[in-house]
Amino acid sequence: MSPGQLPIHGVNFPEPRSFGTVLKSNLKETLFPDDPFSHIKNEPLSRKTKKVVQYFVPVFDWLPKYNLALFKYDLLAGITIASLAIPQGISYAKLGNIPPIIGLYSSFVPPLIYAVFGSSKHIAVGTVAACSLIIAASIEEKVSHVDNLELYVSLVYTATLISGLIQTTLGVLRLGILVDFLSHSTITGFMGGTAILICLQQLKGMLGLRHFTTHTDIISVLRAIFKNRKEWEWESAVVGIIFLAFLQFTRFVKQKRPRLFWVSAIAPIITVIVGGLFAYFTHADKHGIAIVGTLKKGINPLSINRITFDSKYLSAPLKAGVITAMVALAEGIAIGRSFAIIKNEQIDGNKEMVAFGLMNIVGSFTSCYLTTGPFSKTAVNFNAGCRTQMSNVVMAICMMLTLLFLAPLFSYTPLVALSAIIMSAMFGLVDYEKVYHLYKTDKFDFIICMAAFFGVVFISMDMGLLLSVGLALIRALLYVARPATCKLGNLPGSKLYRDVDQYADTNQMPGILAIQLGSPIYYANSQYIRERILRYVRDEQSVASLKGNDIEYLLLDLGSVTSIDITGVETLVEVQRLLQSKEIKMILVNPRLAVMEKLTVTKFIDKIGKESVFLSIEDAVDACRFSLMSSKEMKGIDISIA
Amino acid sequence: MSPGQLPIHGVNFPEPRSFGTVLKSNLKETLFPDDPFSHIKNEPLSRKTKKVVQYFVPVFDWLPKYNLALFKYDLLAGITIASLAIPQGISYAKLGNIPPIIGLYSSFVPPLIYAVFGSSKHIAVGTVAACSLIIAASIEEKVSHVDNLELYVSLVYTATLISGLIQTTLGVLRLGILVDFLSHSTITGFMGGTAILICLQQLKGMLGLRHFTTHTDIISVLRAIFKNRKEWEWESAVVGIIFLAFLQFTRFVKQKRPRLFWVSAIAPIITVIVGGLFAYFTHADKHGIAIVGTLKKGINPLSINRITFDSKYLSAPLKAGVITAMVALAEGIAIGRSFAIIKNEQIDGNKEMVAFGLMNIVGSFTSCYLTTGPFSKTAVNFNAGCRTQMSNVVMAICMMLTLLFLAPLFSYTPLVALSAIIMSAMFGLVDYEKVYHLYKTDKFDFIICMAAFFGVVFISMDMGLLLSVGLALIRALLYVARPATCKLGNLPGSKLYRDVDQYADTNQMPGILAIQLGSPIYYANSQYIRERILRYVRDEQSVASLKGNDIEYLLLDLGSVTSIDITGVETLVEVQRLLQSKEIKMILVNPRLAVMEKLTVTKFIDKIGKESVFLSIEDAVDACRFSLMSSKEMKGIDISIA
Repeated sequence: MSPGQLPIHGVNFPEPRSFGTVLKSNLKETLFPDDPFSHIKNEPLSRKTKKVVQYFVPVFDWLPKYNLALFKYDLLAGITIASLAIPQGISYAKLGNIPPIIGLYSSFVPPLIYAVFGSSKHIAVGTVAACSLIIAASIEEKVSHVDNLELYVSLVYTATLISGLIQTTLGVLRLGILVDFLSHSTITGFMGGTAILICLQQLKGMLGLRHFTTHTDIISVLRAIFKNRKEWEWESAVVGIIFLAFLQFTRFVKQKRPRLFWVSAIAPIITVIVGGLFAYFTHADKHGIAIVGTLKKGINPLSINRITFDSKYLSAPLKAGVITAMVALAEGIAIGRSFAIIKNEQIDGNKEMVAFGLMNIVGSFTSCYLTTGPFSKTAVNFNAGCRTQMSNVVMAICMMLTLLFLAPLFSYTPLVALSAIIMSAMFGLVDYEKVYHLYKTDKFDFIICMAAFFGVVFISMDMGLLLSVGLALIRALLYVARPATCKLGNLPGSKLYRDVDQYADTNQMPGILAIQLGSPIYYANSQYIRERILRYVRDEQSVASLKGNDIEYLLLDLGSVTSIDITGVETLVEVQRLLQSKEIKMILVNPRLAVMEKLTVTKFIDKIGKESVFLSIEDAVDACRFSLMSSKEMKGIDISIA
Repeated sequence: MSPGQLPIHGVNFPEPRSFGTVLKSNLKETLFPDDPFSHIKNEPLSRKTKKVVQYFVPVFDWLPKYNLALFKYDLLAGITIASLAIPQGISYAKLGNIPPIIGLYSSFVPPLIYAVFGSSKHIAVGTVAACSLIIAASIEEKVSHVDNLELYVSLVYTATLISGLIQTTLGVLRLGILVDFLSHSTITGFMGGTAILICLQQLKGMLGLRHFTTHTDIISVLRAIFKNRKEWEWESAVVGIIFLAFLQFTRFVKQKRPRLFWVSAIAPIITVIVGGLFAYFTHADKHGIAIVGTLKKGINPLSINRITFDSKYLSAPLKAGVITAMVALAEGIAIGRSFAIIKNEQIDGNKEMVAFGLMNIVGSFTSCYLTTGPFSKTAVNFNAGCRTQMSNVVMAICMMLTLLFLAPLFSYTPLVALSAIIMSAMFGLVDYEKVYHLYKTDKFDFIICMAAFFGVVFISMDMGLLLSVGLALIRALLYVARPATCKLGNLPGSKLYRDVDQYADTNQMPGILAIQLGSPIYYANSQYIRERILRYVRDEQSVASLKGNDIEYLLLDLGSVTSIDITGVETLVEVQRLLQSKEIKMILVNPRLAVMEKLTVTKFIDKIGKESVFLSIEDAVDACRFSLMSSKEMKGIDISIA
C-alpha cells in the first residue's frame, strides 16, 4: 500500500450494545465460562430435562452405563481406600480433639453422598489433617474438649454444617471463581507449613505427653514439649520410631517401584493391626503407651439435634467453618482436576462445590465432621485403578461393616501408632521440589508460598493463609495498577511493529511515536497511564530534538486493551489535550469492541474524529508519513523515511 | 510472502533477565512512574543536589523567580480566600464539635507549611466539611465533647497527627498508588452522600435545637430532629432561611456571570458580619438565636503536649486519622490535578502527599485540626487569579491579623448563619450531572458511586466508603479473573486478523483456529483461560465437523498478554497436552518480553519447539496453510483457501 492510499479495510464503529446485552454476556463469562448447556440448546424438552438432571446429579449419568467389568476395578480400589480410611479416620479425629469413632463415621455417609453428586471419578472422600487441626485450633479458643467434650463436639458439627452451607452456596451461585484466588503457591506453602505443625503436634503422641498446648504455632508447641520433659515416655518413643521407620520404608518402596503402591497403601492398616495386637498382648497401656480407648459398635447416630447456633459460641464454628470450607474446596477441587487432566477428562469446579457442600451438610446431621477429597487417599484410589464414583460406595460399605462388627477391635490401637501414621503422611505434603521450582521461575510466587509457610508455622494457620492470599491479591491488583506499556518500532524488512526493548533491531519512525498500552485502562491505573505516556513523549522529544526532529504524531495501540472505564476515558481526554498544547496529534489504533463502545458512548471518538482511528499500526504509520511528507514538501524540505 | 517461505524477521528468544534487573525495573514502574530525575542524570553534583532539593522543596524552585507583578495577583487571591477562611473555619469547627477558634487557627499554620512543600500553585489550604464530620463521628464514639471537651480536643489533635504521619509516610514510600484506588465514582458518591448528611446536621443549627444525636446516618438524624420538636425556634429558622436565600442568590449570580465569582466568594463573610451586627444589636441570643460565644485573641498556642496515645482511647483517633488521611488526600490531590490540567501543568501526587502530611503534623502541634486542599476554596483561589503558593502565605497573614486583633468581634456570629453557610456550600457538592453521566456511560461505575452515596447516607461514612472501594476492587479483581479473549478472523483483502465479533465480514481459516488471549494469565484466571480455550475449540470443532473439516492448528495470540505466572504457564502446558490428545497443534504468536522470559525459564518453549512460535498471526497462518496444503496434497485432496 503506498502512502496516502486509503486502507483496504476500515475501522468498524459499531453502535454500543445495550446495557442488558453487555451485562448478560459478562455474567455468562464470569459465572458460566464452560457454557455447560451449549450442546443441548436445540434438543426437545424431555431430552433437555434429562440432560440437565444428568448434569446436576452425575450419578444418573454414569450409573445407567455401569457394568460388572467396571465394578471389578472399583471393588479393589474401594477396599484399598477403606483400609486407609480406618487408620486415617481415627488419627485425624484425634488431631481434631474429637472422639476417634467420629473419624470412622465420617468415612461412611459422606462418600455415599459424593457418589451421587460428585463429578470426579477419582476422588476418594475422607477427612484431612489440615482441616482437623484448623477446627481444633478455632474451637478450643471458645470451649476446651477436656472441660466440655459434649459442647465441643456439637460445635464441630456446627462448623461442618457451616462449611457445607458455604460450599453449596458458592457452588449454586457459581462462585468457583473465589477458589481460584487460592493459588497453587499459597496451597503449597500452606500445606507445607501445616505438615510441619502437624508433625510437631505428633511429638505429643510420640513422647506420650499428657499435657499440651492448644496453640498451633511452632514456638508454643516446642515450649510445651520441653516444659513437660518429665512426662516423656521412652517406651512410647521407641515404638513410635519403629512404626515410623516401617511406614517410611513402604513409601520408599512405592517410590522405587510405583507398581508396589499397594504396599504403602495398606501399611497404615497393618500398623494399626500390629500395634493393636502388640498393645493387647503386652498391656502396653500400663507401660506408658496410651491407647485409643472405647470404640462403640454401630453406625452413625443422628446428630442434627446437636447443631447449635448459640451466639455465645457461634464465632468459633463460624471461623472454623469459613476457613475449612475454602481450604477443603481448594484441596478437593485441585486434586480432582489434577487426576482428571491425566485422564483427559474435565470436572466442573462449581458442581464439585455443590457435591462437597451437600456431603458436609448431610455429614453434620449424621455425626460426621468435615470431609473433602484428600490428596493421599485420592492418589491411592487412582493408583488402585478406580473407574467411577462406585469405589466410594464400596469404601462406605466396608466402613459400615467395620462400624457394625469390628470397631471395638480398634480400641487397642496405641496412640503412638496413629502419630506415626500422621507424621508419615505429612512428610509427603512438604513439596520441596515445587518450592525450588517456584524460587527458580517466579520470585513473587515464591514469596507468596513462603508467606503461607512461615505464617502458618510462626503465627497461626488462618493468619498464614490470609497473609498469603493478601499478598497474591496485592500482586493481582498491582498488575491492574501498573499495566505494562511499550514503545513500538518497525521490524526491518517487514510491516510489523514490535516492542523496541524486545527487538533491538527495530527502526524508529521520524516524527512518529508509537506506544502499545497494557490492559485494562482503569481508575486504578489511569494516572499511571497518563504519566507513562507523557514520559514516553518527553523522552522521545529530547532525543528527537537532538536530531532536529519534532514529534508530530502519537500512535496509541489499543489492540491489547480489553477494557476501559470512565476514568480511563477521561485520562485519554486529558492526554489528548496536553498533546494538543504540544502540537502533537493523537491517533488511536485498533480499539477492541468493548473499548470502542465506551469511546463512542463518551463521545471521545467524535472529539478526535473518526479519521484519527486506524485499524493497524501499519495503516496509521503510512497515513502519518504521507501527511508528514506532504507538509515537509510544502515547506520545501526533503526527508527520507527510515 | 508465499506460503512456506520463511518470514523475513524471526522471533527473538532472549535470555531471561536476572531477577535483580526485573525487580528494579518493576519497582521503578510501580513507585516512580514519572521518572522525576531522568533529566538531571548527567549534570554535575552541585547542580544535581540543587535540582533534587528544588524537587523535594518546591519553594526553592518558585521563590527565587518571584516578583512584584506576580505578588499583585497573589495578594488579591489571598485576601479573597482569607475572607472565605474565617466563616468556613468557624463553621466546620462547629461541625467537628470543637471550639470555633481551632477552625481559625487551622487556616494560619498549615497554609504556611504548604507554601514551602506543596507543588500545586492553585490549592488553597483549609478545613473540609466531610473530614470534620468524620472526626466528630469517630471520636464521639469514645468521648463526648459535652462531657469532656479537653480530652475530646486532645483526641482531635491526635487524629490530625496520625493523618499527617500516614500521609507523609505514603508520600515518602511513594505509595500514591493507594489513592488511585479511590476512584472518581467513589469520591462523587461519597461527597454527595456527605453533603446530604451535613445539610441534615445543619437543621440542628437552623432550628436552634439544643439536643441532638451523635450518629450521622439519615434515620438517626431525622429521628433526633422530630423527637425534639418542642425545641424548634421559629426565629432561628426565619433568620436561617433568609441567609440561605442570600447565599444561594450569590451562587446563582456566579453561575450566570462567571466574572462575578467574587460576589459568591465574599458572601459568607458578609453573612457573618451582617449576622453578627444583627445579633449584637438585637440581643438575638436572648430570643432563641444561639451565637458562637467567646473567641479569645491571640495566635495558635502550642498543642504538642496535648497529643495523647492513651490506649484506652487510641482506637478512635486511629480510625478518624486513617479515614481522613485517605479522604483528604483523595480530595486534595484530585483538586490539585484538575486545576493543573487546565493550565497544562503537572503536579506530583507523592510530593503533594508529603506536603499535606507535613502540614497536618505541624498543625497538630499548633492547635490546628485536619486540613487539605478543599474544592470550594481552591476554586475561589484559582478564579481570583492566584499565581503561586504565595496566595496561601497572604491568607495566613490575614488570618494572623484576624486572630491577633479581630477574633472577639466574631463571637456574636449567630450559629444559624454558620449553618446557612455550610448548607449553601454543600449544595454545590452534589454532582447530579456527573452521576447522570456515569449512569449513561458506565453502569458499574454508577453502582460504585451509588454504593458510596447510600452507604454514607444510610449506614455511616466509613462503611459507605469501604463498601464503594470494595466494589471497585472486586471490579478490578474480576477484570484480572476474567480477561477478555476473542476469536480472530482474516479481514477481507488484507493481511490483518481481528475479532470476529467486532468485524462481521472476517473470513474463517479452514483447519486453523486463532484466539487472542486477554491479559494477564494468572493463578486467578488460569482455570478460566483453560475452559475458555477448550470451549472455543469445542465450538469450532462442532462447526468444522459439519463441513467435514478438522481443526489442526490452534494459534494463541499472546501479543496482548503482558504478564504470566507459574500457574498460567502450567495451564498452557495442560492445554497443550489436551490439544495433543485431540491431534491439534498449538502455536504461540508474538509473546511479549516478560511472557517470553517466563516461557523460556519454565522450559515451555523447549517443550513445544521454537518452530511453533511465530512473530505475527500472518506468518503463523501462512506456515499452517502451507503445512495443511502439503499434507492434503499428499492425500490427493485439493483445497481452496478462503
